[in-house]
Amino acid sequence: MGAGTRGEERRAEILRAALEVIAERGYRAASLGAIAERVGLTQQGLLHYFPTKEALLIAVLGERDQWDAMPDSQWRLDLLTSLVDYNAMRPTVIQTFSALLGESVTEDHPAREFFTRRYVTVRETMAALLRAEYGDRLPGGLTPEQVAPLVTAVMDGLQYQWLLAPDEVDMPQAFRDFIALLAGVTVTREG
Amino acid sequence: MGAGTRGEERRAEILRAALEVIAERGYRAASLGAIAERVGLTQQGLLHYFPTKEALLIAVLGERDQWDAMPDSQWRLDLLTSLVDYNAMRPTVIQTFSALLGESVTEDHPAREFFTRRYVTVRETMAALLRAEYGDRLPGGLTPEQVAPLVTAVMDGLQYQWLLAPDEVDMPQAFRDFIALLAGVTVTREG
Repeated sequence: MGAGTRGEERRAEILRAALEVIAERGYRAASLGAIAERVGLTQQGLLHYFPTKEALLIAVLGERDQWDAMPDSQWRLDLLTSLVDYNAMRPTVIQTFSALLGESVTEDHPAREFFTRRYVTVRETMAALLRAEYGDRLPGGLTPEQVAPLVTAVMDGLQYQWLLAPDEVDMPQAFRDFIALLAGVTVTREG
Repeated sequence: MGAGTRGEERRAEILRAALEVIAERGYRAASLGAIAERVGLTQQGLLHYFPTKEALLIAVLGERDQWDAMPDSQWRLDLLTSLVDYNAMRPTVIQTFSALLGESVTEDHPAREFFTRRYVTVRETMAALLRAEYGDRLPGGLTPEQVAPLVTAVMDGLQYQWLLAPDEVDMPQAFRDFIALLAGVTVTREG
């Protein structure tokens, strides 16, 4: 195995460790020392791969597949429910995401720009999905652009309720209920 | 003015300062020193009022009026939109709430129990409001218990989008759109 490959594997290990430590403590309270320790490096050794804590955060956020195994223009609305099913199987990633989203609204947070840009994109993508499914008006009369921030909000908001009470909040089912609400269909299942 | 009253005023000042510093930095990164400085106390002086940082957090969370100028069983569903209007006028409180909610999902966070209990209560209250308005089924066919976590999620999720892009996300209007969706009414306003 070449040095380049070993370096890449070590980088990936560090990113996984960073994800875990951020899930446990949040970003501001996460220390480079704790992340280094988890992969058997000294802090100096870690700085060889990521020169600053912020550079490490940006690399974690840059692993977009983690957050944005996400609708693109090829997606259909019903695949969103599969995404929520998938999210329910990876609590650590969702915990990291949710902790970072929370912190991102505090002042000068290095993840703020990432989330601000991300939501612009997510709302646009959601609107495109909704338009592909329903045209210019959903059954209730709202436009795709009106509903896009609501779909996004439901996904994020349910994650907090689920992370806090996983046995009580059935996130995938709750999201399916929301999709049914958008479709205006009558649901006969007992709640 | 008696010493008791001065003490209470000082306590209230400290709580306001703590709220601001948590809004700026989150709880884990908030320091007692920074909070003390903001009210012109030494850290020792602050510890006279709140013996630990966690005690201060619990007091901040205990000011329930801040978070839960909230529906009780006397509320009607349409008053929720007034609550969201009100929230849009107090970004610091909403920022503190949102930062703490984000942190609360990290391990052993002192706000975790508060938020876990809070959401049990909020979902129950929301279900009661929805039942008072719609009976056992909403127009789309869902039960109040199915919709309660969705209303809660929309309120929380919209707050993040709004805090990150206040000029782009009209939180009160988006929430009204959601309430219209629940009512199954046709909305003709252009989005």
